[in-house]
Amino acid sequence: MFAYTITSEAGAARTGRITLPHGTVETPAFMPVGTQGTVKGITREELFDIGAEIILANTYHLYLRPGHELVRERGGLHGFMSWPRPLLTDSGGFQVFSLAAINRIEEEGVWFRSHIDGSRHLFTPERVMDIQHALGADIIMAFDECAPGGASRAVAMAAHERTLRWLERCRRRLAELTTAGPAVQTMLPILQGSTHPDLRLGALRRVREIGDWPGVAVGGLSVGEAKADMWKVLEALQPEWPRDWPRYLMGVGYPDDMIEAIARGIDLFDCVAPTRNGRNGTAWVEEDGQVNVKAARFRTDDRPLDPACDCYTCRTYSRAYLRHLVQAGELLALRLLSIHNLRFMVRLAARARDAIRSGTFAGWSTEWLARFRAGRQREGRADE
Amino acid sequence: MFAYTITSEAGAARTGRITLPHGTVETPAFMPVGTQGTVKGITREELFDIGAEIILANTYHLYLRPGHELVRERGGLHGFMSWPRPLLTDSGGFQVFSLAAINRIEEEGVWFRSHIDGSRHLFTPERVMDIQHALGADIIMAFDECAPGGASRAVAMAAHERTLRWLERCRRRLAELTTAGPAVQTMLPILQGSTHPDLRLGALRRVREIGDWPGVAVGGLSVGEAKADMWKVLEALQPEWPRDWPRYLMGVGYPDDMIEAIARGIDLFDCVAPTRNGRNGTAWVEEDGQVNVKAARFRTDDRPLDPACDCYTCRTYSRAYLRHLVQAGELLALRLLSIHNLRFMVRLAARARDAIRSGTFAGWSTEWLARFRAGRQREGRADE
Repeated sequence: MFAYTITSEAGAARTGRITLPHGTVETPAFMPVGTQGTVKGITREELFDIGAEIILANTYHLYLRPGHELVRERGGLHGFMSWPRPLLTDSGGFQVFSLAAINRIEEEGVWFRSHIDGSRHLFTPERVMDIQHALGADIIMAFDECAPGGASRAVAMAAHERTLRWLERCRRRLAELTTAGPAVQTMLPILQGSTHPDLRLGALRRVREIGDWPGVAVGGLSVGEAKADMWKVLEALQPEWPRDWPRYLMGVGYPDDMIEAIARGIDLFDCVAPTRNGRNGTAWVEEDGQVNVKAARFRTDDRPLDPACDCYTCRTYSRAYLRHLVQAGELLALRLLSIHNLRFMVRLAARARDAIRSGTFAGWSTEWLARFRAGRQREGRADE
Repeated sequence: MFAYTITSEAGAARTGRITLPHGTVETPAFMPVGTQGTVKGITREELFDIGAEIILANTYHLYLRPGHELVRERGGLHGFMSWPRPLLTDSGGFQVFSLAAINRIEEEGVWFRSHIDGSRHLFTPERVMDIQHALGADIIMAFDECAPGGASRAVAMAAHERTLRWLERCRRRLAELTTAGPAVQTMLPILQGSTHPDLRLGALRRVREIGDWPGVAVGGLSVGEAKADMWKVLEALQPEWPRDWPRYLMGVGYPDDMIEAIARGIDLFDCVAPTRNGRNGTAWVEEDGQVNVKAARFRTDDRPLDPACDCYTCRTYSRAYLRHLVQAGELLALRLLSIHNLRFMVRLAARARDAIRSGTFAGWSTEWLARFRAGRQREGRADE
């Protein structure tokens, strides 16, 4: 069950609605990341208040701990983590190539060692479907081979070709798993091809030949390449995106990246930056771009962290108090900054939707990006 | 402003109500500890949900960081930490004797070095009143000299005598500070005297000679002495407590300690154990006393942490999920277990009040203590 409806368009940007077994998601949408079945430090009710309509969890982490069979027996990830709204699980592809110690990549799959205890495991396309089926997320991802950031054309091409072969195996396995009942889970293919726009476009064409998918994801970007290279890939894909496929840019990103990508037709985003930055004492704010809450000038600042924000943190506490919590190494600081940063991203996506619907997206996004980046530059200097 | 009304009595135990500038507190009451101006990891709304009517903050910590003048300028501790209900600050006495490096104890006061940066500071009775006046809590504590746990009679006597002399200086200073307006803060004296019942009783008599106080605290207990010694001190004081003084047993305690002390006429409690144990993966539960949430048998346990509890954690998540969070080192585990343990203590005080009011306290408390201790023993064996 996966239905996508476009509700408005403005250039390549568009708004839409994805209907899933556990609810609907207004797009463009930012998905908070709950790596180990929890958005770090944040409860379900806080995610509701933040306005998160869908969250992401990591197949690799949950497979290793607590194990997908344990999760299946607890009612899947929805039951296990008490999250009633839509969920997306990634394929583990990115993690086995970034976190785990790789032993061997074969046509069959990837042998790797757990980053937790060094134990040896094999992920195949079939295995990854089994695991994601046990986890039971609304949207699941095909198993992909991620070529390293600056991969040569030959390496990127091989990874992209294998990802396409694996896609067919994923599809077959998911069909076997779901013959018993209605297909409540929807799998999305992932395009690889590193920063080579022609490979990416070739991947999109091949994916379209293989089947009529409900949507598509772009993987292997935002892994250290120049931002311009990411935009070139999206611009190459833009003319050939099927209009009715929602497009998910995996692992992206920072606030300005999200706006740039929405302008290039992207509908779904996820990133650990809101919670990771929050844990480091960094927050995004409307006026100043990005601020370090430890900054000495916050010492006696009684204003909310972001006077333009409506999150719990900004409704309740002052900059002076937040700075004190960060300085004192208090747990509450991590929570409050994570809540703010998550709300900042979720609300930014909502504001982009409003601008698209009202036909003002081009002007709004240009102005917003200029202000955010100017603020960040000022802050960068202030922090030095 | 401090008014205490007794609402029922059952032997030495009693229920009452303390009316303070920021609200009322039903006693016996457990006060969560917000050492640095935050109950570790917990928001204001969570404290409301837990049912906390008053919380405690530490003068020593807030004086060092962020500084009491900064807090005063932010509207005092109530404004700074956005806490609208009653607050109590301790005197810093316990901390300078336990956390800081002591340089010199003189009649004038105590020279110590900060545990944060080694800087040198002097706490005198007057200085401690100035600081607590700036922090602005509803209840403040007199500056006391804490004799070490196993102090000899001579050492304990000297500390208790000095505490009494300092009490008079505290009272004078507070009077000077509040001539300008109505006395919104109420200072309580602290009885010292280590585990010597006669010294404690002597301290109580001297405190009564010095003035007519609104209440009294017992300090320097629960610092490693045998529990029986603590109960002997309370039993020595019992015949001479002024009936209309609420009695605060500082730093106590664990659930069973609180019930034992209520039976001996104590009205107010504070302890860091609920949040500290929570951060260590330990929880109190009705049936089993104390459990380690990492226990293997919780792996597939879909029940709430404590089926008898009404806290957010028990209403929302399963033991299996909490165990996963603890195993995975997730921040959310600390929060959820702290919330449960705090609610356990606040609710236990409320249950004791109900039992006192209904005249069933003697039977209820005996039964409750037997069950809690039997559970803890079973668990102790299960954990081995």
